[in-house]
Amino acid sequence: MRAVELIQKKRDGGELTTAEIEYLIGGYGAGEIPDYQMAAWLMAVCWRGMTFRETTDLTLALARSGEMIDLGEVAARAADKHSTGGVGDKTTLVVAPLVAAAGVPVPKLSGRALGFTGGTLDKLEAIPGFRSDLSPAEFRENLARVGLVIASQSADLAPAEGKLYALRDVTATVASIPLIASSVMSKKLAGGAEAIVLDVKAGRGAFVKTPEEARQLAETMVEIGRGAGRRVAAIVSDMSQPLGLAVGNALEVREAVETLRGRGPADVSELCRALGVAMLMTAGAVADAAEAGRRLDAVWQSGRGLAKLAELVAAQGGDARFVERPELLPRAPAVADLPAPREGYVVAIDAEEVGLVVAGLGAGRQRKGDPVDPAVGVVLRAKVGRWVEAGEALLTIHARSAEALATAAERLRRAIAIGPEAPEEPRLIHGVAS
Amino acid sequence: MRAVELIQKKRDGGELTTAEIEYLIGGYGAGEIPDYQMAAWLMAVCWRGMTFRETTDLTLALARSGEMIDLGEVAARAADKHSTGGVGDKTTLVVAPLVAAAGVPVPKLSGRALGFTGGTLDKLEAIPGFRSDLSPAEFRENLARVGLVIASQSADLAPAEGKLYALRDVTATVASIPLIASSVMSKKLAGGAEAIVLDVKAGRGAFVKTPEEARQLAETMVEIGRGAGRRVAAIVSDMSQPLGLAVGNALEVREAVETLRGRGPADVSELCRALGVAMLMTAGAVADAAEAGRRLDAVWQSGRGLAKLAELVAAQGGDARFVERPELLPRAPAVADLPAPREGYVVAIDAEEVGLVVAGLGAGRQRKGDPVDPAVGVVLRAKVGRWVEAGEALLTIHARSAEALATAAERLRRAIAIGPEAPEEPRLIHGVAS
Repeated sequence: MRAVELIQKKRDGGELTTAEIEYLIGGYGAGEIPDYQMAAWLMAVCWRGMTFRETTDLTLALARSGEMIDLGEVAARAADKHSTGGVGDKTTLVVAPLVAAAGVPVPKLSGRALGFTGGTLDKLEAIPGFRSDLSPAEFRENLARVGLVIASQSADLAPAEGKLYALRDVTATVASIPLIASSVMSKKLAGGAEAIVLDVKAGRGAFVKTPEEARQLAETMVEIGRGAGRRVAAIVSDMSQPLGLAVGNALEVREAVETLRGRGPADVSELCRALGVAMLMTAGAVADAAEAGRRLDAVWQSGRGLAKLAELVAAQGGDARFVERPELLPRAPAVADLPAPREGYVVAIDAEEVGLVVAGLGAGRQRKGDPVDPAVGVVLRAKVGRWVEAGEALLTIHARSAEALATAAERLRRAIAIGPEAPEEPRLIHGVAS
Repeated sequence: MRAVELIQKKRDGGELTTAEIEYLIGGYGAGEIPDYQMAAWLMAVCWRGMTFRETTDLTLALARSGEMIDLGEVAARAADKHSTGGVGDKTTLVVAPLVAAAGVPVPKLSGRALGFTGGTLDKLEAIPGFRSDLSPAEFRENLARVGLVIASQSADLAPAEGKLYALRDVTATVASIPLIASSVMSKKLAGGAEAIVLDVKAGRGAFVKTPEEARQLAETMVEIGRGAGRRVAAIVSDMSQPLGLAVGNALEVREAVETLRGRGPADVSELCRALGVAMLMTAGAVADAAEAGRRLDAVWQSGRGLAKLAELVAAQGGDARFVERPELLPRAPAVADLPAPREGYVVAIDAEEVGLVVAGLGAGRQRKGDPVDPAVGVVLRAKVGRWVEAGEALLTIHARSAEALATAAERLRRAIAIGPEAPEEPRLIHGVAS
């Protein structure tokens, strides 16, 4: 078998066999197939696509390129959750404690901010002392004791996927449904949980721009997971504007706490409830959606969800007092409102641009390994559909310096469109695949 | 400007600006843009194609990546010739001496065998003592004195093209008309002659399989050359079966000498005459095709063409006695005929497979830099359309050993189709673009 022949086969629209895909991924992971051949093959996949069978084979080859986590007897009862990434998406901080408090263990491996999207680990690490680099033993112990653990993915988990993702990032081959699906699902399969709930984002602030593509991606991932013997559900949710109001690490932690107190933004609460219901159902912990909703609401209203978040943070070395005293979280020195230039309806908030501005303030990173600033970010004061008066605050910017504040304000002014007519309010949940 | 954005632009079907193409090729030539980004871009070009303007810009960027040869006052009178590569194509050995003898200087930079195709330099180097690695000074002196020089392309000529070609070869991105056109024309433009005649091959033994694609490639190259201020003509010729009878280095030199004596195979003679007429016309040395034909026939019949070949060989250190004494050329120790398994018409001779078998005998190379065997090869005894009796020799194999002979015979038996009905004879010349 020669790599160049497999590139040619895909270039000409052919379907690769299981053995051919295993040869490609095995050879690439082992450093025997060079980046330039893989890059040509990836672009040919963007062009010609992959059949469902090929996509599943790619997913399994990537998942098996490293350690497959063994959660023991917990695997069958646990639920994992994954979002395809967006702006202001702090749902894991809310829904994972709720589900764990409702009795379903949540073993979660998370990622970091990259490009315009945020990362759960960066958010949690805004809490003083919080550690995400747990050893496999710590991971298992915390899961057994707390019923919830959120840690960074080790380099041993699907290493070929990590290598392939880095290559896709620099060769403009990220935007391909079979490649995104296999990338996400390979890590979920290696993660060990038998129940997986996916939150597939659609819109300007997501990698996938239309609900239709997102639905296709969701269905592909559900089928891959099922083919591998897992129980999988997916929700397609809106990312045309940021989720909730806060964008930025500590600011989002604060919003998550508010949400767990029942005072969060309506969209965050609604999406978290939908994801929580899906997690309880997929884990097989409840008879139906109504029961799932009741159990979730019970832990939410009783404060047991918030207590579980505090327990998680304490178990991973963090200062859990932030739950009662949010002023313990890092705060930016330069804060200012952005006034509306004129009266009218907020017609659009460009989520990608907001994400880029917040990353530019220091909350995100351009390259893997860059440090992030936990304090900076943006808090929206009005979302799409609201009427604002001229001069009313559209949002508040939290920055490191006056210069950074000015630069962000200039860009954010253009990222928010105001018009005379009320826009159609975006649907939060486009659909569910399970 | 960032390479990943240019890859994305082409992936999405966009047209790159002149500055963007210069940035890509300049950066790639300088080692600043890595192979993997270039590979993704090349595959995106295979997918989306390039406009004529982009193709011209790519050609010029590749040509200008190194030395542009200055032929001085000869440039305006000289004619260069290039074949896109085939099996049994010894036309340069015939037509270049004829044209030089007819008064038009021929400064020719040639290539070597690669894959299933032969290379003019390997053929000439079958002549004991022949040297193709001339210094720039030797190149100019020989051109002035003999009116004919055939030398290897220095690494300084269009170096980015050489690097790009090597990458295309291992990433299945060779088969793209704009990429082939810019690859060929960049070297021709850097070569310095103002008149260029292209022989674009179509068929199983060529990189381009159909006459229609070959015509498109020919027209693209003619337009690129013209846009760069050169006079260019192209002939689209058949490569569905090998050209002539001999395939293999010394065997083809012998056939070229026979052709210059007026005793060559009909197809070789016809194509050489057509190419010679095109070269004299494109160089502006004659008023019309009729005059070109008369001048060519005069040097051919008088033996001045053959004398010019001997002069070329002597000027480049070779033993010119081979013209009178072909037994001085290397000869293979194991020679055997392949008999026809049954009577019938020769319906097809798979040129690519014959090329691969001859390369397998040792006449070609798998990797750049491999040595070649000058003596081995195949001489056809019947071409497509001829009736053969059962047991009659279809061809003669010249090999290094009995084992090699047996292996070649086995493959060649399957490469020649014999049937009961007379096939349509392939047209030798599909068309002319100028």
